[in-house]
Amino acid sequence: MQRALDINRSRFADWYQAVVRDADMAETSPVRGAMVIKPWGYGVWEQIQQELDRRIKATGHENCYFPMFIPLSFIAKEAEHVEGFAKEMAIVTHHRLKMIDGKLQPDPEAKLEEPLVVRPTSETIIGDAFARWIKSHRDLPLLINQWANVVRWEMRPRLFLRTTEFLWQEGHTAHATEAEAVEETRKMLEVYRSFAEDVLAMPVVAGEKPENERFPGAVNTYSIEAMMQDGKALQAGTSHFLGTHFAEAQSIKFQNDAGGMDFCNTTSWGVSTRLIGGVIMTHGDDDGLRLPPAIAPRQIVVVPMLRDKPEDTEVLAYCESLVEALGKLSVFGQRVRVLLDLKKIKSAEKRWNWVRRGAPIIIEIGPRDAAGGNITYMRRDTLRDGDKVRSIAVGRQEFIEEKAVQLLAEIQHSLYSEAKARLDANIKSGVTDWAGVESYFSGSDEEFKGWLRISWSKPSGADLEKVDARLKTLKLTIRNAPSQQPDTFAPCLFTGKPGVEEILIARAY
Amino acid sequence: MQRALDINRSRFADWYQAVVRDADMAETSPVRGAMVIKPWGYGVWEQIQQELDRRIKATGHENCYFPMFIPLSFIAKEAEHVEGFAKEMAIVTHHRLKMIDGKLQPDPEAKLEEPLVVRPTSETIIGDAFARWIKSHRDLPLLINQWANVVRWEMRPRLFLRTTEFLWQEGHTAHATEAEAVEETRKMLEVYRSFAEDVLAMPVVAGEKPENERFPGAVNTYSIEAMMQDGKALQAGTSHFLGTHFAEAQSIKFQNDAGGMDFCNTTSWGVSTRLIGGVIMTHGDDDGLRLPPAIAPRQIVVVPMLRDKPEDTEVLAYCESLVEALGKLSVFGQRVRVLLDLKKIKSAEKRWNWVRRGAPIIIEIGPRDAAGGNITYMRRDTLRDGDKVRSIAVGRQEFIEEKAVQLLAEIQHSLYSEAKARLDANIKSGVTDWAGVESYFSGSDEEFKGWLRISWSKPSGADLEKVDARLKTLKLTIRNAPSQQPDTFAPCLFTGKPGVEEILIARAY
Repeated sequence: MQRALDINRSRFADWYQAVVRDADMAETSPVRGAMVIKPWGYGVWEQIQQELDRRIKATGHENCYFPMFIPLSFIAKEAEHVEGFAKEMAIVTHHRLKMIDGKLQPDPEAKLEEPLVVRPTSETIIGDAFARWIKSHRDLPLLINQWANVVRWEMRPRLFLRTTEFLWQEGHTAHATEAEAVEETRKMLEVYRSFAEDVLAMPVVAGEKPENERFPGAVNTYSIEAMMQDGKALQAGTSHFLGTHFAEAQSIKFQNDAGGMDFCNTTSWGVSTRLIGGVIMTHGDDDGLRLPPAIAPRQIVVVPMLRDKPEDTEVLAYCESLVEALGKLSVFGQRVRVLLDLKKIKSAEKRWNWVRRGAPIIIEIGPRDAAGGNITYMRRDTLRDGDKVRSIAVGRQEFIEEKAVQLLAEIQHSLYSEAKARLDANIKSGVTDWAGVESYFSGSDEEFKGWLRISWSKPSGADLEKVDARLKTLKLTIRNAPSQQPDTFAPCLFTGKPGVEEILIARAY
Repeated sequence: MQRALDINRSRFADWYQAVVRDADMAETSPVRGAMVIKPWGYGVWEQIQQELDRRIKATGHENCYFPMFIPLSFIAKEAEHVEGFAKEMAIVTHHRLKMIDGKLQPDPEAKLEEPLVVRPTSETIIGDAFARWIKSHRDLPLLINQWANVVRWEMRPRLFLRTTEFLWQEGHTAHATEAEAVEETRKMLEVYRSFAEDVLAMPVVAGEKPENERFPGAVNTYSIEAMMQDGKALQAGTSHFLGTHFAEAQSIKFQNDAGGMDFCNTTSWGVSTRLIGGVIMTHGDDDGLRLPPAIAPRQIVVVPMLRDKPEDTEVLAYCESLVEALGKLSVFGQRVRVLLDLKKIKSAEKRWNWVRRGAPIIIEIGPRDAAGGNITYMRRDTLRDGDKVRSIAVGRQEFIEEKAVQLLAEIQHSLYSEAKARLDANIKSGVTDWAGVESYFSGSDEEFKGWLRISWSKPSGADLEKVDARLKTLKLTIRNAPSQQPDTFAPCLFTGKPGVEEILIARAY
């Protein structure tokens, strides 16, 4: 049986584009670098939002909304932050258009005194509010989150992975002590890790970023890193301990128990629509997308096999009662999301649409199923037996009462296990010299490469820059130092000095 | 007992500001005209979003996300649309900042070839996608919605009511026939009407806007209008039939049954964070906000009366088990939202915080309640008996099993009834001449004025402009022609010609 996509994973970048297009997730727009997120793609984002929002609230955070325009002077306050973001921001300079010489253009008389920056992230504008809101230690901790769009100008955009405008959540918190802020930073990293693994079925390695990969203005940056099916790493979420850097730049102070004024310690953390790119590159196969049931906008799709014949009525009625019964079931603490596909296209076309879109269970109902009280289903995670599509027939009652919920849980688990096995099998330890690195990453760029886990002496400043430059010759970066570390270390691969930490090096998105 | 606010409704504009501030809903920001929506205000928006989103999906619409930047040339395509919006848009002209002469500023080398407009609304950018997506009549109707931030430059901003940046949903649909598009426009108006009345407990009059108040580029605009407690009208939602105007400007065409190409008929409709301003001005009283339970982020708040004494432990345990039991109840199809207020401030201060914020039921638990198995509660909708606060004691079990859910439904209903009675009592019919209009709207601006329902001949063009100018002398506008019309009409108040329609005239936000 022909594959649903005409491009397989051996041409990974092309395959990715084909999946995004054929699964109807998103498309490029006439605005350079900004995408249109289509209903099926946005439906995935809504599931992500709902479940992650629940977890962010369960850890004590409240949602707010802050202006998306940031006065230029705010950005200028924190020097490192300027350095990190100044290069890629959209700048509003006028507040009116005017027809001049028959051409619509910015009205010179409506030039802003101070240009406004479209938020690339909101530390500065939220910090300004924190400075007003926080007076005493009784106002701390202050735990805030917002769901918003942000803009970072992208010269080489890719749908979901790197777009000029993207959607995300950004958490911002202020604390009385460094210890509490560090604890918060790590707690939210753990929220991201468990969300990625339990909900997105995307195994990750949580750890600390090296100094040269920190968020501009952060003391420490932590990340979760996921392995895509081409072996490259995807930074899927970050959590930053900002120390008192932003608090000092913005005067975020509180009266301590003794009556004196202290600067707050702050944190920030975020994940974005990039996660959807991660899901696609983790679970997609040669037939298109495979969605973990926990985030599939529709977990079960029912396709009636209609033939413009009298028995169509019976088939439709059978499908409707099936959909109604399935919609009353619960899985992952929510009602099962089920759809009866009534589009006026051929049923074979519907099947392949849902295969490409990655609906976890696709049910096809023909006159014989309806007459015999059966259903025929396909599991998207194990769609084929060799080249043949695997269709499974089962009694209607059995499917509703025993199978449906169990299958969804099984698919969620099997997608995770498959990805976890790939991650574990492709992090290679034991390489101790540069020649070993070169050999591991030799060969064509198209070839699958995993990650190396190596020991280093954690050089800083100029020494780290040297390491970074050397890695760049092989298109490599340090992903993070995993949270789980051994007790003893091999000598540093770069400097030969005693090792103090293990890090992951990889090619990355 | 002293009121919770220091300003009463006789000074309405000041009172509104005080409620927004003291209920901790929102505040102004350092960005001119843009507000910060604080957790309690954003919590209300989340409830609005959740319930309205459910209704928008139930009527067959799917959510998407489109770029917030719109190329200037897109705006220029639809002449009326340009005219209507060109005056108030934020314009992005550069994509990079640079340090020049020690000052951070837009990099002249990063000037955009074509300026980008921050969306004031998305007809043009969504229409561009529609033109790509729609090929044949089988692609119709196309029913899309998005939740987004939009920007319209405001010179006289007011929190929630008129802000430079605001949050909203915008529906955009395309249809094969005019009849279907008109039906969609009316259907969504009805969704807004029932949402406003059933969920926000805010009675409205649905009807059609006069020609001079139409959305730029629309054939017909419909609105729901609500009466605030100062008698002014608030346009709370709009639904537009756009005919083929945008389709022609953007080439949104489909192949009809006969194989020829037809332009689509399109619609758009939206409500925004302005609704929150409407809720405040509909339900607030001299003690602050009163929130309809259906949108209160917390429907029941439990305040433990702690005294730093040994019995505190017992009081707390009693409160915790109460909160747990209440949280298992359901109202309006969802779990009851209940909070145990453990902030480290005095319990009297907590009480007044929740009164000002408008939590529908506030429960106070002291040692005597805990020992006796009772609870003491206040209903926010009927807080006082004269000047005295009404506290009601009832057995814990009775409250949980019989009272709580019933009370929340009762409060929702009583807030609606109160507002509905005010609306009905303050729409005056029977005025037939201009002198009657002048007399009705005479007196100080601070005085409560209702609306007039008058008959007119529906003049158009220059004749309508004359009517409009005359109304402006009294600061009046035509709100809409209510959907419910009588069979016969008095002569036109303005022209003396035979009347064809009744319209509402009022002062408005």
